[in-house]
Amino acid sequence: MLTISNRGNLMPPSPIRKLVPYAEAAKKRGIKVYHLNIGQPDIETPKPILDAVRNSDLKVLEYSHSAGNESYRRKLVTYYKVVGIDVDYNQIIITTGGSEAILFGMMACLDAGDEVIIPEPFYANYNGFAVAAGVTVVPVTSVIENGFGLPAIEEFEKKITPKTKAIIICNPNNPTGYLYTKEEMEALRQIILKYNLYLFSDEAYREFCYEGTHISAMHLKDVDENVILMDTISKRYSACGGRIGALVTKNKLVLDAVMKFAQARLSPPSFAQIAAEAAIDLPADYFNTTKAEYKARRDLIVKRLVAMDGVICPTPGGAFYVIAQLPVNNADAFCQWLLEKFEYQQQTVMLAPASGFYGTAGLGKQEVRLAYVLNLNDINAAMDCLEKALLVYSKKQP
Amino acid sequence: MLTISNRGNLMPPSPIRKLVPYAEAAKKRGIKVYHLNIGQPDIETPKPILDAVRNSDLKVLEYSHSAGNESYRRKLVTYYKVVGIDVDYNQIIITTGGSEAILFGMMACLDAGDEVIIPEPFYANYNGFAVAAGVTVVPVTSVIENGFGLPAIEEFEKKITPKTKAIIICNPNNPTGYLYTKEEMEALRQIILKYNLYLFSDEAYREFCYEGTHISAMHLKDVDENVILMDTISKRYSACGGRIGALVTKNKLVLDAVMKFAQARLSPPSFAQIAAEAAIDLPADYFNTTKAEYKARRDLIVKRLVAMDGVICPTPGGAFYVIAQLPVNNADAFCQWLLEKFEYQQQTVMLAPASGFYGTAGLGKQEVRLAYVLNLNDINAAMDCLEKALLVYSKKQP
Repeated sequence: MLTISNRGNLMPPSPIRKLVPYAEAAKKRGIKVYHLNIGQPDIETPKPILDAVRNSDLKVLEYSHSAGNESYRRKLVTYYKVVGIDVDYNQIIITTGGSEAILFGMMACLDAGDEVIIPEPFYANYNGFAVAAGVTVVPVTSVIENGFGLPAIEEFEKKITPKTKAIIICNPNNPTGYLYTKEEMEALRQIILKYNLYLFSDEAYREFCYEGTHISAMHLKDVDENVILMDTISKRYSACGGRIGALVTKNKLVLDAVMKFAQARLSPPSFAQIAAEAAIDLPADYFNTTKAEYKARRDLIVKRLVAMDGVICPTPGGAFYVIAQLPVNNADAFCQWLLEKFEYQQQTVMLAPASGFYGTAGLGKQEVRLAYVLNLNDINAAMDCLEKALLVYSKKQP
Repeated sequence: MLTISNRGNLMPPSPIRKLVPYAEAAKKRGIKVYHLNIGQPDIETPKPILDAVRNSDLKVLEYSHSAGNESYRRKLVTYYKVVGIDVDYNQIIITTGGSEAILFGMMACLDAGDEVIIPEPFYANYNGFAVAAGVTVVPVTSVIENGFGLPAIEEFEKKITPKTKAIIICNPNNPTGYLYTKEEMEALRQIILKYNLYLFSDEAYREFCYEGTHISAMHLKDVDENVILMDTISKRYSACGGRIGALVTKNKLVLDAVMKFAQARLSPPSFAQIAAEAAIDLPADYFNTTKAEYKARRDLIVKRLVAMDGVICPTPGGAFYVIAQLPVNNADAFCQWLLEKFEYQQQTVMLAPASGFYGTAGLGKQEVRLAYVLNLNDINAAMDCLEKALLVYSKKQP
C-alpha cells in the first residue's frame, strides 16, 4: 500500500489554525470574529519598503545568491551594529522566513534522534521542524506564577543527556511575551558552555520590549561557536508575507553546513529581499511608534483580563502575546465554544488554546494565548466578548 | 565538542556552483565568462507579471494561506486544464519554489532509510533534499548512446527493494533535456502500479518541448493515488527568483500530510504569488516566442558541439540543457582549466561537469552539461571558446 511516512503522521497540525473551520462557520452566520489567535499584525507595512518593490526596475526575476543578496547582507551588518551585534556579512545567511533558519539550524547541527531542550510553552512550529529533522523536543516547564521566567538551571540539567545538542529560546518569547533578564541569559551562557551545547536564539520580536533591555544571545561572551541567531523581518516590519529571515552565527563550520542546505533550495525570494534591504533605511524612530502602539495594547489587554473574575494574566515584557489562565477546565473546548455557540452583540473572539504550545501532555489546559495584533477599540470589543462569555460559560460548567 | 550533524557533513555542495570561485577570479583578470553552467534564463520576465507586483496596493504584507492564496490556486486550475491536467484547487499546495515541493513530497511519503529510484544523470539537488529527508537515492543509469532515454524497466526492477517507496522523474529532463515518450511514461505507469510506488514527477520544463508531445504523469490512467506532480513557475516565466512552485496530487492523505509541513513554515512568499497569479493571464501565444527562441538556441548549440572533433551530443527534445561528451579524460579538471588557465580573445566559457549529476561514482567523467540560457550570439562566442579550448587541451593531455 502507498503509505504516508511516519514523520508525515507524527507532524502536528497547527494548533493555531485548527479552530479555523469553526471561525469560518461563525462568520457565515454573520458573527464578527476578533482574531486574537494568530500573530498576524494589523500594523501597516512601512510604505518605503513596499515602494522599494513597486519601484524596482528588474527585468529578469533572477535567483539571488543562495545566501541572499550581498548588498542586503552588507546592509544587515549595519542593522545588527545598532542593536549591539557585531557580525560580518558573510556570517549572515538569508533564509525563507525565520522558519527556514530554524529548520536549517536543526538540520545542520542535529541528527535524527538527537535532543533539543526548549522552555515550554514554546512556539508550536518548533515541533514541526523537529519532526521534519527527526529531532526529539525535550521541554522544561516555565510557569505562569512567575510570569513564565526561565526555569531553574537545575531543571535544564535534569533533562540533559548525551543526545542533547542544543537549547532553543525565543526572546522575547512567543507565546508568553516573557523577556529574559541579563541574569537568565547569563545562566544560559553557563549551561551551554558547561555542556557544550548550541544555543538557538529566536529573536523575531527583538524590537518589541516594553520594560528592561533586550539581551541578545549574540551579546554573550565567549560563546561565539555555540550561538546561532534565528531572525526574521516578519514581525519587525509587519512583513510576514515576505518570507525573509536570517541565520546568523560566527561558527564557520555551521555556516558552511547551512550553506549547503541553502544551495539545495537555490535562493530566498528576490522581491522580498528588495523590501528587506529598504527596511534598513527606515528612520531610526520607526520602531518607537510601533512599540508605543503595542505597549498601549498590552497595557489594555492585561488590564481587561485581570479585571475578569478568576483570570490570571502576568504582564509580559515583550513581543505581542500574553498567556492568560481562565476559570475553565478545558480551554480547547472553551475556545471552540466561543466560535460555535457564543455571541455577544453578534460578535465573538478567537483565542489560541495554550495546550498546543506545551510539549508535556496535560499542561496548559486552562490557558489561552492572546495576540494583541488588533487596535485598541477592537481589543476592548474582544475583551467585552470574553468577559461576557466567561460569565455565561461558568453557569454551564459543573 | 560542538559538532555538525552527519547529514550536514553528507550534504553535497552544489556541483553547479563549486567552480564559482574560479569564474570570479577569471573575471577579476578581465576575462569575459559565458555562463552555460546554470539554468538561469536570460529571457526577460514577462512585464505584466512584474507589473502586477509593482501595481499591487497591499497595505500589510500578510502571511498567505499555508497552501497559497485561494485565488491563485483557483486560477492554476485553468492553467492545468489547458495542459490537459484536470485538478481541483484544493489538490494544489503552493510551495516556495519547486524545491520545497520536492522536499515536502519526500518528507511526507518517505522515512529515513527509505529508497527513491531516480534515472541518472539527475538534477543534483535531489541529492540535497534526500539527505535532508534521510532518504537513500538509488540511481538507474541512462546513457548518452540513446540520448538518455528511460532505462529499461528491468533496470528499475533490479533496484526495487522493500524499502523502495518512489521513483522520481524530471520530464523534460534536467540535465539531459530528454523528453519521455508515451511508451516510456506507460512503462513507468506499469511499474508504479505493479510495485505500489509513488511517482514524483518534476515538470518544471513542461512548456519547453521541441519535438513530440509532453506527457504529464498526471495524464496517466488509474494512478491518481501514486502520482505527485512537482511544479514551478521559475523556468516557465523566467521567474526563478519568485520562489513559487506547487505540489499537485489527487492523493488526499498525501495532501493532508504535506499541508502539515506547509503550516509549519506558515506560507509561501506573498509578492511572488501576485506575480504567479498574473502569469496565468498571459496571452496564449506567450510560450510560442520563448519556445522558438530556445529551439533556435538548442539547434545552434547542438550543431556547434557535434561539429567539434570528438564531441558527442544527442539532440534533446526539451528543457534548455544538453549533455555533451567531450574528448577529455576528466571534465571536472577541464572545466576548471577553462576558467583558470584558458582564454580566447579575453573570453572563456563556464560549463557544469556532469559527474555531479550522477549518483553512481565514476560516471559522467567525460561529460558536461550546457544550459542554453544565452542568446544566439553569445552561444556562438561561447562555442568558439570551447572549440579552441578543446584543441589547446588535446595537446596537453597524454
